[in-house]
Amino acid sequence: MAIATLMSSCCQSPEIESSVPAKMVNGTVVLETPARAEGQTSALQMACEPIDTVRVGFVGLGGRGYSAVGRYLQVPGTKITAICDKYPEKVSAAQEMLKENGFPKAAEYTGDEGYKQLCEDPNVDLVYICTPWLLHTPIAVYAMEHGKHAATEVPAATTIEECWQLVNTCERTRKHCMMLENCCYDFFEMTCLNMAQQGVFGEIYHAEGAYLHNLDPFWPHYEDNWRLDFNQKHRGDNYPTHGLGPICQILDIHRGDKMDYLVAMDSDSYRGAARGKEFMGTDEFEDGDHTVSLIRTHNGHQIEIQHNVYAPRPYSRIFQLTGTNGYACKYPEPVFAVEPDPENFADKETFDALCKLYEHPISAEYEEKAKEVGGHGGMDYIMDCRLIHCLRNGLPLDEDVYDAAEWSCIAELSRISIKNGSVPVQVPDFTRGDWNEIQGFHHSGF
Amino acid sequence: MAIATLMSSCCQSPEIESSVPAKMVNGTVVLETPARAEGQTSALQMACEPIDTVRVGFVGLGGRGYSAVGRYLQVPGTKITAICDKYPEKVSAAQEMLKENGFPKAAEYTGDEGYKQLCEDPNVDLVYICTPWLLHTPIAVYAMEHGKHAATEVPAATTIEECWQLVNTCERTRKHCMMLENCCYDFFEMTCLNMAQQGVFGEIYHAEGAYLHNLDPFWPHYEDNWRLDFNQKHRGDNYPTHGLGPICQILDIHRGDKMDYLVAMDSDSYRGAARGKEFMGTDEFEDGDHTVSLIRTHNGHQIEIQHNVYAPRPYSRIFQLTGTNGYACKYPEPVFAVEPDPENFADKETFDALCKLYEHPISAEYEEKAKEVGGHGGMDYIMDCRLIHCLRNGLPLDEDVYDAAEWSCIAELSRISIKNGSVPVQVPDFTRGDWNEIQGFHHSGF
Repeated sequence: MAIATLMSSCCQSPEIESSVPAKMVNGTVVLETPARAEGQTSALQMACEPIDTVRVGFVGLGGRGYSAVGRYLQVPGTKITAICDKYPEKVSAAQEMLKENGFPKAAEYTGDEGYKQLCEDPNVDLVYICTPWLLHTPIAVYAMEHGKHAATEVPAATTIEECWQLVNTCERTRKHCMMLENCCYDFFEMTCLNMAQQGVFGEIYHAEGAYLHNLDPFWPHYEDNWRLDFNQKHRGDNYPTHGLGPICQILDIHRGDKMDYLVAMDSDSYRGAARGKEFMGTDEFEDGDHTVSLIRTHNGHQIEIQHNVYAPRPYSRIFQLTGTNGYACKYPEPVFAVEPDPENFADKETFDALCKLYEHPISAEYEEKAKEVGGHGGMDYIMDCRLIHCLRNGLPLDEDVYDAAEWSCIAELSRISIKNGSVPVQVPDFTRGDWNEIQGFHHSGF
Repeated sequence: MAIATLMSSCCQSPEIESSVPAKMVNGTVVLETPARAEGQTSALQMACEPIDTVRVGFVGLGGRGYSAVGRYLQVPGTKITAICDKYPEKVSAAQEMLKENGFPKAAEYTGDEGYKQLCEDPNVDLVYICTPWLLHTPIAVYAMEHGKHAATEVPAATTIEECWQLVNTCERTRKHCMMLENCCYDFFEMTCLNMAQQGVFGEIYHAEGAYLHNLDPFWPHYEDNWRLDFNQKHRGDNYPTHGLGPICQILDIHRGDKMDYLVAMDSDSYRGAARGKEFMGTDEFEDGDHTVSLIRTHNGHQIEIQHNVYAPRPYSRIFQLTGTNGYACKYPEPVFAVEPDPENFADKETFDALCKLYEHPISAEYEEKAKEVGGHGGMDYIMDCRLIHCLRNGLPLDEDVYDAAEWSCIAELSRISIKNGSVPVQVPDFTRGDWNEIQGFHHSGF
């Protein structure tokens, strides 16, 4: 083999459109890390004053917010003190639910800026945000600025710049900012986390997650068509966190490892474009039907995340782990392939025994009540209970502001990569150098 | 969102190590396409003089070559006229098999250059190559240069430069060069090809293939440790063709579409490194345990190929198709999700009915005999029969020299991408502009 080695003397560089300053270095897009402002300190393992009864204010009472209020009727140690939606009728419907269940009326706020009044309400400790994506960061920031903890639906942010807003605001105000990544609390994921932490899979060096979910039945139900509108305007994996969250916990991201760089690629838009035409009368549609992102970590591990909300196929988040000693995958059917027979899938009896043996103590604690309350099979309720548990006991949250930023930033990073021909993009270190301070992910108190 | 748009005025460019001259253009590695030499013309749809009885010479009589000779005892219209191996005892074993089955003794050639004598043997029409990878191209080229058709085990080439050697030699000598990609002839793949061609999946825009096969039990059996040795020295997806072949046929690659660019990423080496230490006493190991390549096609489709020959997990080639109207996946269990219920996997009855309805006529023709003869469940025999059928009837081969080059080149392309931080690499157009001349892949005669 004749090897031609050459230093290309000149390379044209593409224009990089991004929400923070960016430049190309050795073929990789590097995004500027803003300096930490004076008086601002790391929020790693940040704990706040315990709150005996957490007074919760909900912003956004559409499908997701309304059901969250319903769950909180049964979350111990909470009080629903305020509710807010742009539309008064949604507020009325939630008040009705409170009344029907014998709960006192909550303070109510409506209109485009109602969330500000809710954030300023002295009877609120935690602002729980279930609005369209573009409002997550502005409301979370406003909440923290006004002395409230913030919990926001996924994704917490839609741009890198918003990710930094969340991080900086949390670090300055010392208020929590949790992204409500419910999939981290799903039963199989928690079992696998436990197995991983106990070394069953050996060193996990390849992990796959996804959001493969045909939203055709849902498009007509997003208020003002906000979700399709976002995808119509934004190329990339706009919804990466359900796949990424559970994997990042297992791979100890910013607890001994970090995501180093990403490349992404999409397909053209087919069914997405058809929905855009149907709902919006436009021939233009930015988001490709299928998007794949590959992420390499500092420790030499690999994460793959897929996104497709258009294909008429069975639902999947993939959730696959490949380790030096074993393998697990959740979809299409949950399987393990582990010692002493890693070359074959465990039979039903072995599978059930493994699930029982490695049931996560958090799952065990909440399972019965969670399955009764529901919310994606119970994981939403467990997530809510863990958040409240940590706030009541002054513990660091399971999912901190760096998780929120890291898991959300993939949307814009994938967009930058794809729009520049799949070039690699460095993943920002939102801890600003502290990713190796904590060794291993742990739920507070476990 | 504040958009910072900037033209980076300067970018350092990495050194690109590759087997053909390369340069960075807009962040993408572009490999030089050599000009077509005078007297050399396209080999698209190339047909040769029919051969009534195909006289086959086998080079390489290890596990794969020995079983190939065994299959050819039962391939109609052939005669085994010559056999060759570096080691005389392997030649003797094959002669023994011929004798036991009542076949005449074949001419025999041994030693490092025995293949040259076999290629020069006037009683050979087709040189069938089952040697270690590094000899595939040199022997195939030598065969064509000496007036023989060449069929080589996968991968046909280990570098881009070798890919061009195959293409140029075939175009100049007008002798066939087929890479023996047997997985194209497996039953489920053939059924899916038929379904795809009949539009069952709609437009297929995302396809996944893989070679995920723990070779631990096999490493001790490769003569002179050639396979582990190759992986120890070469990073990247060194064995991409089993995953890629069936997908490229379905996506009409160089029959109306072409692969445009690739990005690849691997994990660190863990079990590979341990095998290197164990078998070779070295601490260095180039190949990462898990490699993923993403390829975008000119028509906006997306191919993903994975490689892992180290993980102790169940075997998989994935083989997954996502289309606008339906979905198929072969591993871990073959499934379809198609109209009228694409959101759910077809039940067993529907699955079986679909397999029957869309059974490929080639599968149907050879199935019974193929399952009797065997060879990876029958696909090897069907592949052999098709090759011989085309040679006997003067038909273009199902898998031509451009397929061989396209499917093999992924190894070095992925290496270039990975070694330069996952930069995109343009996939060479081995047809030199003719990729859109033929509309749709078809088996000759179908």
